[in-house]
Amino acid sequence: MVGLDNFITGSRRNLEHLKAYEAHGRFALVELDVARGGALVDTALDARGCFDHVWHLASLASPKEYLAHPVETLEAGSAGTRNMLEIARRDGARFLLTSTSECYGDALVHPQVETYWGNVNPVGPRSCYDESKRYAEALTMAYHRSQGVRTNIARIFNTYGPRMALNDGRVVPAFLDQALRGKPLTIFGDGSQTRSFCYVDDLVDGLVRLADSEERYPVNLGNPFELTILEFAEAIKKLMGPNLDLVFTPLPEDDPRNRRPDISKARRVLGWEPKVGLEDGLRETLEYFKQLGGKVSG
Amino acid sequence: MVGLDNFITGSRRNLEHLKAYEAHGRFALVELDVARGGALVDTALDARGCFDHVWHLASLASPKEYLAHPVETLEAGSAGTRNMLEIARRDGARFLLTSTSECYGDALVHPQVETYWGNVNPVGPRSCYDESKRYAEALTMAYHRSQGVRTNIARIFNTYGPRMALNDGRVVPAFLDQALRGKPLTIFGDGSQTRSFCYVDDLVDGLVRLADSEERYPVNLGNPFELTILEFAEAIKKLMGPNLDLVFTPLPEDDPRNRRPDISKARRVLGWEPKVGLEDGLRETLEYFKQLGGKVSG
Repeated sequence: MVGLDNFITGSRRNLEHLKAYEAHGRFALVELDVARGGALVDTALDARGCFDHVWHLASLASPKEYLAHPVETLEAGSAGTRNMLEIARRDGARFLLTSTSECYGDALVHPQVETYWGNVNPVGPRSCYDESKRYAEALTMAYHRSQGVRTNIARIFNTYGPRMALNDGRVVPAFLDQALRGKPLTIFGDGSQTRSFCYVDDLVDGLVRLADSEERYPVNLGNPFELTILEFAEAIKKLMGPNLDLVFTPLPEDDPRNRRPDISKARRVLGWEPKVGLEDGLRETLEYFKQLGGKVSG
Repeated sequence: MVGLDNFITGSRRNLEHLKAYEAHGRFALVELDVARGGALVDTALDARGCFDHVWHLASLASPKEYLAHPVETLEAGSAGTRNMLEIARRDGARFLLTSTSECYGDALVHPQVETYWGNVNPVGPRSCYDESKRYAEALTMAYHRSQGVRTNIARIFNTYGPRMALNDGRVVPAFLDQALRGKPLTIFGDGSQTRSFCYVDDLVDGLVRLADSEERYPVNLGNPFELTILEFAEAIKKLMGPNLDLVFTPLPEDDPRNRRPDISKARRVLGWEPKVGLEDGLRETLEYFKQLGGKVSG
């Protein structure tokens, strides 16, 4: 197995458990930007032989990060996707794209089903992420249709768990970080917007099943248990401290109001559904952050 | 002035009137794919000096062409746009993107206004064009916001006129071609879908005004005079032969039902509106095709 990362937001610490595999030649890390220099990527990966699977998971994914790096975010979805698709085409490998629920934008259909075309502002500040992923889906389908590459597309909804960056700006690590420090939990807007949080182990199980399936069109992967951000803050207080305060700040531009996956298709096509409840998942994540102590970044 | 083209659909004959300018060093043609090899594009253009304006007009634009070249279409919008934006950034030039009414997809708002976010299927066969242009808009805004490039975005609606390819599959040349040969006019679906046709001179006037404006967000350029395809066929019959037959064939997948620009913004911001009526425009176009005789491609 080969991992490709430029660590623009990732952490080397997250790969420490792979050191034993690396020593036995079963894992190798190539440090490169997936979007830069297709030939460079090819050369780096050529040395590792022929691939059976190419999983394109690379992207800045947290609003805080992609708003700070909009061009890099767009490039990861365009040039990055093309570079990975070219390797899959060359090797006859299966290709998996990790797309996003953000393809639905500020959805007018609820819960979101894969056949919904979305409501995305192409020129808003968040478009660097949303349009990058919509482009990546279109390119993946174009390679499937015109080049015969065996492709799969996952639309991933909010996911959390160990190895998240505590400071990446998303609500799960943000609340856990604030709670661990005994600080007030920050709510954007009035907290009535909804999210659905999927634990990472459930998501990985879904991706493995999808990569083995014959489904070419996008499949939602996420937890259909929906709650408001206020309800989520209450869950954190219940777990970590009933005395935590809440502070309210303005909602970011084009922030989606509601987000809940319709996972009928994943149930039907992959026999998949999430198994880990929010309280168990949060407890595991909290344990991880406690172990880390103050070391929150790379 | 420098023109960059790989002639994947363009014709060298369309540049013949520039030969005098070329002889006096006022025009040069660089034959290259705008999407391939940023360094190559840079080198080719470096030799021509520093640019004041960069207009990115390159794309496969007719459904017949982009469905045959989906990956190239996507690349023209992503790598092509990035290469041109990089030159604008380097030279401090103004950048103009020609985007498209297809960003609105199968619009649920009619007529289409710039603030409408669109209804595009990201994984349908036409997404290679629609998502390519939506991506190009997002990248243009990202360069404006994060790199300070002075950008403009035109959303061009159906345009026609001399120098179109007679065989590019779009309805104006298709009908004129069929009428010139005395063949029946081919109607997709029942012909009740609407289009609005802008004459090329009007469009060019709008682009020049836009490139001199301070408007950063997209501006619709098109003719708000809307008619059904059936009504358009009647206009062709009136102009060319009342005895022409109509034949009906199935509607292509994801074909937009209605298309009419709201040009309030172009009127307000650019003082622009189309001046050439359909009958005059069609007559000019017909004259051009007659002059050409049978020479329909490059």
